[in-house]
Amino acid sequence: MTNASVKPENIALLSFDEAFEKVNKLILQKLSSSPSIVRQYTLYLTASRGKFIRAVSLLTCAMDAENRINPDAVLIAAGIELLHLATLVHDDVIDDAETRRGVASLQKKFGRRTAVICGDYILCLALETVTACKRTKESLDFPISTYLTRLCMGELSQHINNGNLNLSIYRYLKIISGKTAALFEASFFGGAILLDKDSKTISQYQKLGQYLGMIYQLTDDCNDYEIEKSEAAKPVQSDFEQGVITLPLIYTMQNKTGLREQLASGTLNDSELNQCVLENNGPSFAHMVSEKYYKKALSLLDKLTLSDEKRSRLTFLFDKSCSWK
Amino acid sequence: MTNASVKPENIALLSFDEAFEKVNKLILQKLSSSPSIVRQYTLYLTASRGKFIRAVSLLTCAMDAENRINPDAVLIAAGIELLHLATLVHDDVIDDAETRRGVASLQKKFGRRTAVICGDYILCLALETVTACKRTKESLDFPISTYLTRLCMGELSQHINNGNLNLSIYRYLKIISGKTAALFEASFFGGAILLDKDSKTISQYQKLGQYLGMIYQLTDDCNDYEIEKSEAAKPVQSDFEQGVITLPLIYTMQNKTGLREQLASGTLNDSELNQCVLENNGPSFAHMVSEKYYKKALSLLDKLTLSDEKRSRLTFLFDKSCSWK
Repeated sequence: MTNASVKPENIALLSFDEAFEKVNKLILQKLSSSPSIVRQYTLYLTASRGKFIRAVSLLTCAMDAENRINPDAVLIAAGIELLHLATLVHDDVIDDAETRRGVASLQKKFGRRTAVICGDYILCLALETVTACKRTKESLDFPISTYLTRLCMGELSQHINNGNLNLSIYRYLKIISGKTAALFEASFFGGAILLDKDSKTISQYQKLGQYLGMIYQLTDDCNDYEIEKSEAAKPVQSDFEQGVITLPLIYTMQNKTGLREQLASGTLNDSELNQCVLENNGPSFAHMVSEKYYKKALSLLDKLTLSDEKRSRLTFLFDKSCSWK
Repeated sequence: MTNASVKPENIALLSFDEAFEKVNKLILQKLSSSPSIVRQYTLYLTASRGKFIRAVSLLTCAMDAENRINPDAVLIAAGIELLHLATLVHDDVIDDAETRRGVASLQKKFGRRTAVICGDYILCLALETVTACKRTKESLDFPISTYLTRLCMGELSQHINNGNLNLSIYRYLKIISGKTAALFEASFFGGAILLDKDSKTISQYQKLGQYLGMIYQLTDDCNDYEIEKSEAAKPVQSDFEQGVITLPLIYTMQNKTGLREQLASGTLNDSELNQCVLENNGPSFAHMVSEKYYKKALSLLDKLTLSDEKRSRLTFLFDKSCSWK
């Protein structure tokens, strides 16, 4: 039964730390209280934890002038992190991935069938978690399935362009806008609607989320070329080995004559390709694009009325995502 | 924005035929107006249509004393059929199925990756469709993700028991209760809540849905042994060849000494097994179990206040599902 009549003023608001702690607990509780048949798998997923950057984004955006947070933010944030987890589990099926966050992927450990069903199950958990927040009218309007649709489109688009050496910069940006930035946008949107801001402000938050997602993904794509394999927390296979064509490589192919042909004929090994991309400033170009989003974000942040703490937390998120590893 | 304030009396109610036509159109429209990147795949799925028995169930249950139907029923019915379609697409990934409803499965035609993502996408479509119905307060309470969770548990349980020659009758019934009956229950529940009945009546409808789902699955499991391969609309591989242990086989293994050992050692071919199950009355036993659900259903139907047309349509659904092919 919906309960939109409960007024926000009757709700005990939370500090950021309280809310973040609750998100952590809620995700752990959701994954560890699954029906016994699925618990073994969902518990396995709790062993390697992400950074919960999407939850941090949402809680930060939900901070009011007194830095207090509507407790519905906890549910939406946990829901978004569970949604992210579900897509990771399905990604691993799609990519036949061996590892995830440093440990064996669910599909490697328990098989593809289990991973497909568990991904579906965690998707349900995510939706249940988000739809459980009915304390305020605003949280009813969080369109989680719309964002999930955009995620799917991004995934599909990346898959279709797998190994496409003619992928354009425009198309690449479009792919990561769905694949990664949509969920960051959802996080910023989820935070903003709880503040009951006007629609212009909400759309500014959405843009900020988009920018953060783009910066995050561009930095991640650069890391793939810039960071030594031994240091990387990612799977040992490089993006290119998995057929994923990213901006550093697209830029290099546009500037280094003959590279596309060499890649098509398979005459370049992974380490030679890596060196070629670095020498031709592929990552530098991608960082430059990322910086454009960063500058747009900072100028948009200037326009928003924010508490000092909220402004500093948001700025930190953008700074951190430029060098995320 | 929720719109629970619109009163049912302001809504133009539909006849069964109008509503069913709208469900068909809506599903087709949803699948054919997908973003261009996914349209090729979703359109492919419209080529082979199911019988929409879940939608028929829901619309029938939603009929009021004058046989009129709240138009929200169209959205929930289409959502449930899309949910069913999404699980079929993922099922095919899980089972490595070659065909579905007589044509090549999505994963066979376009690859596993595409099928995983398309399944996720259609899941989103289903959720969006159901959450779009906000005309009446009642339709807000349809817990689609809870039913999806039960479906997942049923799937997982079936997968874990794949090839398990010691599967008990109790465990088997539990599996099909999730895998199949949950979505029939959802259909009956979805129809009943739109009638705004008291909770006792709603739970009677839910039970009816459970019974129909059990009958439907038991009949399907019998068909696998009783119908000649050439007649069957199902994939050519039998349940047993796919490792799916169903009631006719469980009963036969409990009664025919040495069968379990023969199956474990692989000394029986598919046609010999089929004959053995038939000779030992495996399907007859399953039909008898199905009949128990059928009788319970009829006695429950007697207790409900129904228009003549509604009663006759519901009875027809139960009669038909006993011999469904």
